[in-house]
Amino acid sequence: MAFNKKQKYIVGIVGATGAVGRRMLTTLEERNFPVDRLVLLASPRSAGQTFSFRGQSIPVEILTENSFEGLDFALFSAGASVSLKYAPFAVQAGCIVIDNSSAFRMDKNIPLVVPEVNPEAIPEQPGIIANPNCSTIQMVVALHPIHARYRIKRVVVSTYQSVSGSGQKAIAELTTQTIGVLDNKDCVSQVYPHQIAFNCLPHIDVFLDNGYTKEEMKMVNETRKILGDDSIQVSPTTVRVPVFYSHSESVNVETEEPISALDVKKLLHDSPGIRIVDDPDKNEYPLAINAEGKDEVMVGRLRDDISKERAINFWVVADNLRKGAALNAVQIAEHIIQR
Amino acid sequence: MAFNKKQKYIVGIVGATGAVGRRMLTTLEERNFPVDRLVLLASPRSAGQTFSFRGQSIPVEILTENSFEGLDFALFSAGASVSLKYAPFAVQAGCIVIDNSSAFRMDKNIPLVVPEVNPEAIPEQPGIIANPNCSTIQMVVALHPIHARYRIKRVVVSTYQSVSGSGQKAIAELTTQTIGVLDNKDCVSQVYPHQIAFNCLPHIDVFLDNGYTKEEMKMVNETRKILGDDSIQVSPTTVRVPVFYSHSESVNVETEEPISALDVKKLLHDSPGIRIVDDPDKNEYPLAINAEGKDEVMVGRLRDDISKERAINFWVVADNLRKGAALNAVQIAEHIIQR
Repeated sequence: MAFNKKQKYIVGIVGATGAVGRRMLTTLEERNFPVDRLVLLASPRSAGQTFSFRGQSIPVEILTENSFEGLDFALFSAGASVSLKYAPFAVQAGCIVIDNSSAFRMDKNIPLVVPEVNPEAIPEQPGIIANPNCSTIQMVVALHPIHARYRIKRVVVSTYQSVSGSGQKAIAELTTQTIGVLDNKDCVSQVYPHQIAFNCLPHIDVFLDNGYTKEEMKMVNETRKILGDDSIQVSPTTVRVPVFYSHSESVNVETEEPISALDVKKLLHDSPGIRIVDDPDKNEYPLAINAEGKDEVMVGRLRDDISKERAINFWVVADNLRKGAALNAVQIAEHIIQR
Repeated sequence: MAFNKKQKYIVGIVGATGAVGRRMLTTLEERNFPVDRLVLLASPRSAGQTFSFRGQSIPVEILTENSFEGLDFALFSAGASVSLKYAPFAVQAGCIVIDNSSAFRMDKNIPLVVPEVNPEAIPEQPGIIANPNCSTIQMVVALHPIHARYRIKRVVVSTYQSVSGSGQKAIAELTTQTIGVLDNKDCVSQVYPHQIAFNCLPHIDVFLDNGYTKEEMKMVNETRKILGDDSIQVSPTTVRVPVFYSHSESVNVETEEPISALDVKKLLHDSPGIRIVDDPDKNEYPLAINAEGKDEVMVGRLRDDISKERAINFWVVADNLRKGAALNAVQIAEHIIQR
């Protein structure tokens, strides 16, 4: 069915009590999204909680197959299994689904969208639109202008990902373990297979047969799909670090065309969604603690690769819960209502 | 003058009260180095402290130009300026200097040695021998067998370096800041230019004109010198993470010859100084908290690069104060007395 432009929209958040769901609520509020009514949906164990939205107290409702009647948008962030089960009911009810899980990302019939990069992938009559993985979003925002001008051949990326990417329980686990280590107590690990406090885990999501993790293969496959070029080669290593918010990434890019860090700095400065933070003389470079709560993807440490012609290095940081998830989803909705 | 074999040696530690100096003392003790007498040397502000060695209490003496009379070995770890000033006096006194600072590493007349890699670089009559930078040592222990068999063309490395690499004050700063952040207090940064607690700093040592840091260029230049091959290209990004002990590194290696991760796993398993920790099905991979206090360089996450032929990825972790500094220095001394 056709998307009807309205003055205000009824918006549902599925997984409203989670780390990303909460950011979806505040992002809708901060960006003055034209919300007629906000519907917060979650599992039965979250029922009874309330959240404040524009001064109103909104109760969390239990997610059911019938939750989507009358909704214009449903922003899903409750894991792939919830999306797989409930997104079809939302679509059937005439609701546009913007899904933050991995459920539909690599489905060739579902667009995978970063609004600064491939807004044209959003169809006239959207059903389900997939929101990419957090570590991919911030990288492709920086890679897109580079690819357009210099044609990217290969990317070698190592990530420094914060625990908030694993949800509220992981934030609590890092806090509890940190206090425990400083008190010389034994650490209990429930969210992660090993202690994350004062440690680095080269392991995000499950291991696959090729020795890479699912998180790493997301960076390979989603990057190609979003940039619309299966010839781009990506070699990723994804690592969890003891940081609460924002992912950092060390990115090496090889291109077809001659490239220089200085030109890329200007190019990215003029590209949407990016803030250049790159003044080594003043010790200025992107930092996780500074990206927290910010909308922009921050790029710095731009320099020519000294090991190879036609290659550069940079460091990219973004708030994984905002641009890496909630903000990107809301931007997709904004794009649909504004065009 | 000629090196005289003895049953026991008089050994001095310059910078005995620092993070590395203390590990030098415990390493000599643990490895039963044939110490006749241990001389602990430091700046006047450390005088009066005592340290226990083999049950004896050893006072810290003030470092002077005359401190080296009668010493067989002097292990320096008090910064480049101290080494530059005092190492010549030690050599003049007939003492072999093993220097952990950056002062002499790239001096073409001074050998730069990792005993598992290039013991042949130690001359018959040693004067000053340089100990490489911590982030370089653990990487070259893993790269050396790979280079010997497959000829390395290029390395792209991103590091996850612990604060102990910046000394005792940095360990204290991470502790204090961590408690402060959890208590919602403002953070004071003295050792680092920014908060290190729950953050990642893509900045180790000073920035150079080419946009790389000195730490990064150490990884380029020292790797070439130790492996004896200036054709090896290295593209490094060095990052400080909120970890107390042990450095982790994400390493991508491109080779001349066809290479497979499976073969490299066997090769490194049989190579000196390396422990393979690589069983993803059991969530086993090298971890900073497990490497602390260990002698071996731990290698895991070995996998074929999916982005390129003749390339692999791996994750290498070692105790930066031990193999990255104190242990490597003591191993050099052992090599001299044993050959």
